Amino acid sequence: MTNCELCASPLPREIWRGRRFTAIDASSEDFPAFVRIVCNRHAAEMTDLDEEETHELFALLAAIERAMRECLKADKINWAQFGNVVPHLHWHIVARWRDDAYYPECPWGVRQRDVDPQTIRERRANFARLAEVLPALLDKAARQG
Amino acid sequence: MTNCELCASPLPREIWRGRRFTAIDASSEDFPAFVRIVCNRHAAEMTDLDEEETHELFALLAAIERAMRECLKADKINWAQFGNVVPHLHWHIVARWRDDAYYPECPWGVRQRDVDPQTIRERRANFARLAEVLPALLDKAARQG
Repeated sequence: MTNCELCASPLPREIWRGRRFTAIDASSEDFPAFVRIVCNRHAAEMTDLDEEETHELFALLAAIERAMRECLKADKINWAQFGNVVPHLHWHIVARWRDDAYYPECPWGVRQRDVDPQTIRERRANFARLAEVLPALLDKAARQG
Repeated sequence: MTNCELCASPLPREIWRGRRFTAIDASSEDFPAFVRIVCNRHAAEMTDLDEEETHELFALLAAIERAMRECLKADKINWAQFGNVVPHLHWHIVARWRDDAYYPECPWGVRQRDVDPQTIRERRANFARLAEVLPALLDKAARQG
């Protein structure tokens, strides 16, 4: 769709581009480990996907969650798809820590606190390492999904 | 888990209880069509579920989205699982309209406006009708999932 910003290719900060979906680094100071999965074709809702796309999408999200749990010592993993601003299917998957800037609020809630800069640097460094291995993990998940 | 409020049974405002998951009416004035799917056993993360549970869960969520799209003339369907407050796996699935109280913010964002009470009444009435047919749809989805 020509007027859709997520139909643009390449997307900013791409980590991995598969045949059906693309993973983007959406991390920030407040959310040091945040991946966005964007559908390559223009679709708005989950039930606009066919069975193969749906299966692959959940395999990708699960692979990201598994990697986050293994590499980041996070306290919780958050998943969300809204698309209220850009109605092109995309998922947010965010590692959360009890002492992060928004916890226990969701990433779109009210900011709760400042976080020690050294903690943020360590989490961002761990996420950068995770992002390096993610393409191989997502290739594998896409083949199985 | 004895100190987990979502391990309580029955949950408030149950719409449907299956073998693995329960659907709850989470609707309100601001979100007239809102279903919560709660895992019956205590699990915290998506990757704590086994393959059958995962498959059924997505079949249930897709069935709810499909029913919302057919019955409610919503502009967008939002899906989210956080569990930051109660780390017992549960999903929020929320029908959204461009003129609803929070749009385009997510349901955990900043309230944007008051909504005409007649519009809210109509949407709640449509959701009440949807909630009546949901048990049959979820039984079917659970069997296929």
